[in-house]
Amino acid sequence: MMVTSRLASLQNLLRRRKLDAILVTQPENRFFLSGYTATDHGIGESSGVLLIPRRGAPFLLTDSRFTLQAEQEATEFEVKLYKKGLISLLSNLLPQIAVKRLAFESSYLLHSTHVKLEKAAQKIGVETIATTELIEQLRMEKREEEIAAIRRAVELNERIFKEIHRGIAPGISELELALKIETRMRELGTQRPSFDTIVAFGDNSAKPHAMPTERRLMKGEIVLIDMGLVHKGYCSDMTRTFFMGEPDPLYIERHRVVRAAQLAGIAAVRAGAVCRDVDGAARKIIADAGYKDAFSHSLGHGVGLAVHEEPRLSMRNRKKLRSSMVVTIEPGIYFPNWGGIRLENMVVVRDDGCEQLNTDTTWLDI
Amino acid sequence: MMVTSRLASLQNLLRRRKLDAILVTQPENRFFLSGYTATDHGIGESSGVLLIPRRGAPFLLTDSRFTLQAEQEATEFEVKLYKKGLISLLSNLLPQIAVKRLAFESSYLLHSTHVKLEKAAQKIGVETIATTELIEQLRMEKREEEIAAIRRAVELNERIFKEIHRGIAPGISELELALKIETRMRELGTQRPSFDTIVAFGDNSAKPHAMPTERRLMKGEIVLIDMGLVHKGYCSDMTRTFFMGEPDPLYIERHRVVRAAQLAGIAAVRAGAVCRDVDGAARKIIADAGYKDAFSHSLGHGVGLAVHEEPRLSMRNRKKLRSSMVVTIEPGIYFPNWGGIRLENMVVVRDDGCEQLNTDTTWLDI
Repeated sequence: MMVTSRLASLQNLLRRRKLDAILVTQPENRFFLSGYTATDHGIGESSGVLLIPRRGAPFLLTDSRFTLQAEQEATEFEVKLYKKGLISLLSNLLPQIAVKRLAFESSYLLHSTHVKLEKAAQKIGVETIATTELIEQLRMEKREEEIAAIRRAVELNERIFKEIHRGIAPGISELELALKIETRMRELGTQRPSFDTIVAFGDNSAKPHAMPTERRLMKGEIVLIDMGLVHKGYCSDMTRTFFMGEPDPLYIERHRVVRAAQLAGIAAVRAGAVCRDVDGAARKIIADAGYKDAFSHSLGHGVGLAVHEEPRLSMRNRKKLRSSMVVTIEPGIYFPNWGGIRLENMVVVRDDGCEQLNTDTTWLDI
Repeated sequence: MMVTSRLASLQNLLRRRKLDAILVTQPENRFFLSGYTATDHGIGESSGVLLIPRRGAPFLLTDSRFTLQAEQEATEFEVKLYKKGLISLLSNLLPQIAVKRLAFESSYLLHSTHVKLEKAAQKIGVETIATTELIEQLRMEKREEEIAAIRRAVELNERIFKEIHRGIAPGISELELALKIETRMRELGTQRPSFDTIVAFGDNSAKPHAMPTERRLMKGEIVLIDMGLVHKGYCSDMTRTFFMGEPDPLYIERHRVVRAAQLAGIAAVRAGAVCRDVDGAARKIIADAGYKDAFSHSLGHGVGLAVHEEPRLSMRNRKKLRSSMVVTIEPGIYFPNWGGIRLENMVVVRDDGCEQLNTDTTWLDI
């Protein structure tokens, strides 16, 4: 049902752009349009691609390892097997369904694959057209059932954080803590972490994308945890930072600056707000506190089937937020040899403001 | 030390091909040449790329989230920050170091990135040259210290399988068993699974790339487990299939066919053997037993920093094996509504045959 209406929206879009068909290679787009849940082992090892003509039945093209699963899951699709590879199958199939203008996803097709596709297309008189963000556009504004799925992922995320927080004590290593978190995610039946869990102690937290190490926690150190999970296809993403033991005045001051920036960002979110202005609202608080250069990344990003998707809340994005988008608000400040503080929540954009998906403020207001 | 000699080999290769520099985007190639361990969140979110000129100091280009880590790990490299993105940094850097002919990795660069790169390159009079498998070639023949690392990964893999095998009983679900395996991998200090662990019961095992489900094991069912881990950068990959309870005659017959095919494949491996002939040696056993069409994939693949790399032991690969390559030998036969049997070991190609990295044959010879 959901798949049917998504296909219809895409086919409308194809007609408007005078495209005969689109080749869908991006994995979340593939799931969004087909319900097919297979995952790829990197971009070089695809578990299948969709070929969606502007009218008529769509195709799922895959190899023999995935045929059974594809037929079971992508019930709206005709599953076709490529024995000699995708390009060879397309060379036969495209003329059969009278495709002359074939769109492809420029942001998810390898240069080497495009070279082969282009060569084959020329032979059969097909024009290939690079598109970007075509299906991503359809994914940006969430339906209420998608928001419900995301809300559930956020709830599970908060629950796990609360549980594991109790067990955090000096002596535990970053790797051990990350393992505890990810094991709990899977015990609760979620599919997988939405990204490699970040656990950083002390000055390791000065790296916004720190990888967990053998380092063991000591009293008097910062603990930064950035964790997300995938549940029924949808992602959560949350960061909490706290101090092991009694926080010192500098930590408290900086934490409060980040929290104030987060609240300013949240307050700026509503349908119609310009993305860079939302980023700016939070950034101003940090700059006014004297930490301008320490906030070295964007304020946030969209979340849905992918943990990082459109829209980006960055200094450069002049686009406007629309109702039912889901974004993170995650200001952070980082100081080499001291550490970093990042606080990340997720919100749903609404006409008159936003709905906060995180409900637990225990570690935010100190 | 290892990094220094790898860089020298690559720079030799660049000189021979009259290339001024290469842009390295592929993550395992990046680690191989620099020692930088950051992981990418998919191809669209890189944690950095290398720019290696044919002479002089190499560069690691990244953003502010990764600078600290890059400087700590890639000690042979000059770390440069791209504030306005990679392409903008390259536009400035390439003329400074007099690059006129820039190679890029065609099999690991998005079409959309290439379009931007090409546009920028034309403006500054730089020619871009698509390459494939350039650094992968350097990775195919392993040094003994790399083989030692792979051997250790295989040992850990066998140890974990042995441990968890004891706990497999009717009632456990595929997901629970996969979780046990992956948790144990991490408890033993390995970095991560080298791919999503496959656990398939009964007729689910007919899908060569089955994803674990809630399905619970019953007596009289096939259990197929395909698992791999990454330890100190290097991968293992192993498949075992067995029967829960007393195996029926059909299972025993088919299992023995697969094992015989595996042994025939292993016997065919030696430096100088043609890849398709090794595949053929195993395939013949299966065809002769009447199961030709049930063996629907290739016999094996290289393993190293990537779990799937060159060389491919496929029906189409006419290249020859060389000493010190590491490959899997994994014949499998699959029957919808019945199940599948796959047995996978890893071997090192040697001048006079091969060295088996797996030592435990408990579940192979039945």
